[in-house]
This record gives sequence, C-alpha cells and structure tokens, in this order.
Amino acid sequence: MRISPKTNNIPNKWYNIIPDLDFGVPPMMSSSGYALSHHDLDRLAPYSIIDQELEKKKRDLSIPKEVWNFYSNWRPTPLYRAERLEKSLETPARIFYKHEGGSPSGSHEMNTAVAQAYYAVQDEGVKCMVTATGNGEWGASLAIACNYFGIQCKIYMVRSSYEQKVYGRYVMEILGAEVVPSPSEKTFTGKKILAQDPDSPGSLSIALSEAFYEASGRDDAKFSWGTVMNHVVLHQTIIGLEARSQMRQAGASPDVIICAVSGGSGLGGLAFPFYQERGRGPRIMAVETVACPSLSKGRYAYDYGDTEGLSPMLKMYTLGRSFVPPNIRAGGMRYHGISPLVSALYREKQIEVKTYMQRKAFEAAITFARTEGMIPSPETSYAVAAVVDEALACKQRKEKKNILFLVDGNSNLDLATFKDFAEGAIEDESFPEEYAQAALEQLPEVTPP
Amino acid sequence: MRISPKTNNIPNKWYNIIPDLDFGVPPMMSSSGYALSHHDLDRLAPYSIIDQELEKKKRDLSIPKEVWNFYSNWRPTPLYRAERLEKSLETPARIFYKHEGGSPSGSHEMNTAVAQAYYAVQDEGVKCMVTATGNGEWGASLAIACNYFGIQCKIYMVRSSYEQKVYGRYVMEILGAEVVPSPSEKTFTGKKILAQDPDSPGSLSIALSEAFYEASGRDDAKFSWGTVMNHVVLHQTIIGLEARSQMRQAGASPDVIICAVSGGSGLGGLAFPFYQERGRGPRIMAVETVACPSLSKGRYAYDYGDTEGLSPMLKMYTLGRSFVPPNIRAGGMRYHGISPLVSALYREKQIEVKTYMQRKAFEAAITFARTEGMIPSPETSYAVAAVVDEALACKQRKEKKNILFLVDGNSNLDLATFKDFAEGAIEDESFPEEYAQAALEQLPEVTPP
Repeated sequence: MRISPKTNNIPNKWYNIIPDLDFGVPPMMSSSGYALSHHDLDRLAPYSIIDQELEKKKRDLSIPKEVWNFYSNWRPTPLYRAERLEKSLETPARIFYKHEGGSPSGSHEMNTAVAQAYYAVQDEGVKCMVTATGNGEWGASLAIACNYFGIQCKIYMVRSSYEQKVYGRYVMEILGAEVVPSPSEKTFTGKKILAQDPDSPGSLSIALSEAFYEASGRDDAKFSWGTVMNHVVLHQTIIGLEARSQMRQAGASPDVIICAVSGGSGLGGLAFPFYQERGRGPRIMAVETVACPSLSKGRYAYDYGDTEGLSPMLKMYTLGRSFVPPNIRAGGMRYHGISPLVSALYREKQIEVKTYMQRKAFEAAITFARTEGMIPSPETSYAVAAVVDEALACKQRKEKKNILFLVDGNSNLDLATFKDFAEGAIEDESFPEEYAQAALEQLPEVTPP
Repeated sequence: MRISPKTNNIPNKWYNIIPDLDFGVPPMMSSSGYALSHHDLDRLAPYSIIDQELEKKKRDLSIPKEVWNFYSNWRPTPLYRAERLEKSLETPARIFYKHEGGSPSGSHEMNTAVAQAYYAVQDEGVKCMVTATGNGEWGASLAIACNYFGIQCKIYMVRSSYEQKVYGRYVMEILGAEVVPSPSEKTFTGKKILAQDPDSPGSLSIALSEAFYEASGRDDAKFSWGTVMNHVVLHQTIIGLEARSQMRQAGASPDVIICAVSGGSGLGGLAFPFYQERGRGPRIMAVETVACPSLSKGRYAYDYGDTEGLSPMLKMYTLGRSFVPPNIRAGGMRYHGISPLVSALYREKQIEVKTYMQRKAFEAAITFARTEGMIPSPETSYAVAAVVDEALACKQRKEKKNILFLVDGNSNLDLATFKDFAEGAIEDESFPEEYAQAALEQLPEVTPP
C-alpha cells in the first residue's frame, strides 16, 4: 500500500555524508602514490562532478534547477508499505520499500545520469558522454539523460550481455545511443584482450577500461560512472532524503535499512540520509551475492576501478580488478569493488553484510511479486531475500521492527531471468575462492602520502 | 515535462457517458433476438458488473473504497507536456499525454482489472476469474488484481503469443496465474478447432470463446472482459477524469483527443469525460491499424464478441467474428469489433478515425522515445503517428492547438518488436479485403425487439 505523499516535495539539495563522519575517508590515489587533485581528474569527468567527488566539507549540495525539473518528471518516487507481504509472512514487522522502478529508464540510475549529463553540457565543448554497462539499465539511463540535454551517448557494453541480453542493447539504440560490444577493436585495452582471446565474453571492468580509454583521449567527451564514486552516491541520496520525509509522514522510523549492493550507490543513496539518525539506531544491511562478495570476502585496499588500471585508485573492499565472477543473472552485482564510502562505513562496522544465492533471491522475488504486484530487478531480489529473513526473525522474536528496503528498479530488461528460473534453468552460484586469491595477489602496491 | 499535480486527488466516481448522450445506444441481444437483462448475464459476470454494464441513468458511479485504495498505489497518473517532441517537430501545437505506463502491470488495463476482481469477491462463492489475453498485458493486470483480492486467475492465451511472446506468459505465471494456450483441449470450442487444425495459432476471439465456455460452466468462476464492454469503458474513465482536472491545472483545454483503438476502452476512458465539454469542441480521433480497421471498414451491426458465438451480441462496428487479421505487432489491435459506446459515437460522427501502418507507427514511437525518454507500447505507437501528423498540420496552418493523447502502457513486454523494427524485420500490414468480406457475410441476422 502506498504511503501517499501528503506533499509532493522533492528535495532541492543532495546530502554529502562525509562531513558527518567521525572518521576519515581515504583519498583517491594516482598509480604513483599521491592523492589526486582536481587537476588530475579533469580530462575524465565534468568540472562540477570533480568538485562534488572531492567535496569534504559541505554537507548539503544544491540540486541545479534543470536537474530538479527533470527529476520532477517522476519524483518523488513512492514509498510503499508491503502489507500483503507482511501478512503472508505472518510477521509483526512492518516492511516499507522505496520504489525507484517508475523512472524513465525503470531504474534508480536515472538519478545520477541526469545530474552528470547536465554538468557535462555546462562544461565547454562536451558533446558526448562515454560509459560502460552490463545489462543496459545504466546505459539506458544515461542515453535518456544525454538526449534530454542534447548531447551524444556512447556505451561500451559487456559483449556477453550485448549478445544475450539483446533487449538492453536495443533499448539503448532506440534511445539513440551508440552501443559498442566490449572488448572491441576500438581501444588499446580491447585489442589487447581480443588478441589473447578473440572470443572473450568481456566484463564490466574491461568495458570500463575501454570507456576510460576513449574518454581520456577525446577533447569533446567525458567519462561517466554509473556507481561506486562519491558523486554518484551523492546524487542517489535523493532517494533517502525523500524516504526519510515519507517515513516521517507514515509515523515510522526504520530500525533496519536493507539494500542489495552492486557498486554501492543504491545503498548509500537510501541509507546515508538516515545516518544522522544513527543515535536512534537504524542498522544498515548490505546484501551481496555469494558469487561476488566484495565486502565479506574482499580486502580493504587500494585498487583500480577497471581491468587495465586506467581509473584512479580507490580505497575500497575489492576482490581484485582481474577477478571475473561466475555469470550470475544479477549482472549489476558482478563488480569487483564497492563504493569507497560504503567500504569506509563497513570498515567502521556501521554497515553489516549478508550474502545470498540467486535461487533463494528469485524465490523471494516471486513471493514479493505475488503479494505486492511487481516483479523486481534481479539485484533487488537479493534484498528481498534478506528482508524476508529479517521479517521472519522478527516473527520468531516477536519484534515489531520497521524494515525499509530499496526496489532499485523493475525487471523490464530481465524477464528472461525469471522465465529461466521458472523453467528450473538457473543454478546457484558459488565463490571461486582460488581465482579470487589470485586476483587479490595482483592488487597494486601503494604507499599512502 | 510533467504537469505536476497541484493536488493528488483521485476521483471517487467513474463517469457513465450514456445519460449525457442525445441518442440511444442499442442494447445487448441474445442470439434469439431479445434484449438481454440482468438475469441473462449473471452466470458470466459479477452481479455489480452487470449492473454497471446495463446502467443507463446514473452518470456518476461511486468507486468502492477498496478499489480506490488500490488505485492510490499508482494514481493519479502523470500528465506530461511533450515539449521536446513539440520542439523537434517545430510545431506551434502543444502536445499533452496522459501516461498510464506506471501502473503495476505497466498498462491502463489495471484500472478495470482491479474493479472487476473487487466485485467478483463481493459475489458469494467466486474463487476464480477467467479471461483471454493476447500479448499478456491484460492477463498480467488481472493476475495482479486477483492476487490482491485473494482469488485465482485463469487465462486463455492466444497460442501464437504463448509460444512467441514468452515474457508475457511468464509474467502472468510468476504472478501466480494459470495460463492455458488457446485453442486448448479443455473446452468444446478449443477441441473443435484443434480437430480441424492441430497447429492452429489461435486468435483472441477463439481464446474468448474458451474463457466464456469455462466461466459459464463453473459455479465458482466468472468471466472477465479486458475491453469492449460498457463497464470496462466506465472503469477507464478514471483516466479522463484525472486528465480533465490536470489539463485545467495546466490552463489548457484539449482541441483534439487522440487514442489508438483496440477494443475502444482506452479511447472511451480518456475522451468521454471531456464529452460534456463538447460545446467547446474537442475533436476525438480514433487511430486504427490498416490490418484491422473495425471502424473505417467494418459494418455497424450486431455481432458476437467471440468466434463461437458464446458472448452476448453487441451492436458495434465489426469486421465479423471469424475475421483473423494479419499478424501485426500491436496484438491488442487485432480484435474484430469495437466498443458499442465508441461505435455509437462514431456512427453519430462524434468520433473521427485515422488508419496507419506499423512502420510509420514505430518510427513515430522512436521519435517519441528519443525526445520524451520512454518507449511506448506498440498500440500507443499508432496514436503517436497520428499526433505527429496532427502537430505537423498545425505547423503548416500555424495553429496553436492543444493535442491530448493516451500512452496506454509501456513497452516492457514488446521490446522484441522494437528490436525487430530496428533490424528491418517488420513489414507493413495490409487489409485482407476478400477475407473480411467473407467474415462480414457470416454476421448473425438479428431482429431487434
């Protein structure tokens, strides 16, 4: 049941958590071991985006009017209470979810895409945004945003997805973006990998390398991150800011906030605005796949965001940039690292983590679909599995907790996943321990400044 | 750009156009030629639904609280102004669209599904709703509604769609519905057709016959119409009632209302609430496919709603119930007849009609997607083609008209259509004149009472 907005207010500021932390967040590093400044990054990202990435002091950052206007096409997004799910679980817990699936692209990734495209057009001479995508939700979001602001969009798409998840590819192309299967012959990294293995299925880390390579070599293009980075988390806080005010309207305060983690921007976006309420105690739970458990099995270390090592080095929980996880359906959760901000809070034990396998996740998603009437994305399915377990624990302990979780998007581009699941064609994933060990041994050695 | 709702009001009454018409609407007939009464229909539909179907006097019919509560999960739906589309067409016209794609099923069909499932549970002993679907949008809507009210849902799905449009099928199954490919061995009609042609691809009219057959033979089940009937149009007027108030907020009054027609409930739902404003002159334009032009090439006559002749006879524009149109992608537009209410208004020259072929429709849809950021359903694509032509005519004549049209749903289940279109694999449709002639010769002979 929708917690009807009593007001239609959309926040006019994003929330930067850094000034509220009582510990430091390690800076980005160059490969030669010095902390990166604005100047080092300006070939990659729009000027204002770098400002936001490096902002340590201001906690409230204004949302430009043009971005706010675009947000108002679908925001505020609804907050629902999952009363029928509660009932089916016979739990005394109250389950709330913030539903981002109604955005133009069907996912929360619109929130940052719009901001990044806006800032790009503010920079003189930027004609194109370049990025990397797996399934296509992020690519579609950026394509819509680039259309809106009248610039081009070029997307390196993981080759296995390009070939198998054709709908994602076509959605991006219909929206006018140029989609290139990665590895490609167009970049140094792509050529190198194809020389070793002409049939390489690619990976998000490889596609990121290709996108970095192209963006850094062009004067008229900028690279765009879909998750991980501070500025992406910042833009996603619009979710939590709205949810905080909607929960207040509902007269409820979350005891636990649950979110699947891919790069971590969804979790940060939903949970960080509640951080100031920490005294009242909302736990924050990140949900990972067994196949790619960056937080629970990764190392807190400096690593690159891409295979080739073209990105800045980030202090984060990482499985190593050469780690290629099993081919699970929640493609967005197959990234080796996780947001430095989420990593820092996990390091400080302010975030807990749970891991699930995909069959349990999709079972929970089907329970959710039958009670709440919508099929969530494969990534959200992992969160739902954790929500169900939390609600059942409340039942056992007779606790009337408030659980809040994020539906990061709908399942438009992933219906094949649920079809295959229904046909019994989906196996549970496992963690390739030895391979991860090898990837961790390749972490860069860095001497902090 | 969204015309932000200044209020979040959802109407609490549906609008029945019949009392406002200055001409009569011919009644439903039995095959032996008498006007059907409540008693004749009660094995098919829930009691209150029959009341609504036959209501001639009350113009405002209350929306039950439970239905209103469910509506509030996604209603009021947004009204947008398509400023970027206007700009790309360089038209002085203002283009508005009411966007129903954000419903739980992604289509406007939720509006009637919820009402029908609600009234079914009010009837003693109803445990199941039985219906027929093509692509699956309607079936998914009814499945969600049945889940919500705790009853079962059984869906006869046109076999060619069951096999080719597998996502629609799986969405319904994930939602817990029983989906049967039609023709099936489960009904008299299905068996008869399979005996003649074991490989029959089926049609909506055949699937309707099967659903009628099952519902009329079961005490615990009721049949559910997804379009055509008066009560379905009634439920869909929630769209136009909201749009009317939102247009007023925008300070604009539509000069022309454009809608693709399948069974006609979308058109009636959007346009009828503006009917009272007829003095100020909103034209109403129905958009058909060349493949199945019920209004422009059909005959205004009594015909059955299904192949077998199990439904009541309806006075409507029809191509004949045995007419099977070419296999175009807008599956919802392949029905031989059209709503008796829409038919009556067309007969009275209060609705005009335009026909388009699918490639022009999908081209217009892509222009819309690139400017407005969403890919509409194949059915809506036909409306967009007419909107573009109307806007270009305004440009030529330097007229600053207000155009309002319906986005009946998103393209979730139809991305394959746009993929095939992009690959050049979609041909334009034509009207099988001779075949339609043969079907028209089989119209039932009826002596009105």
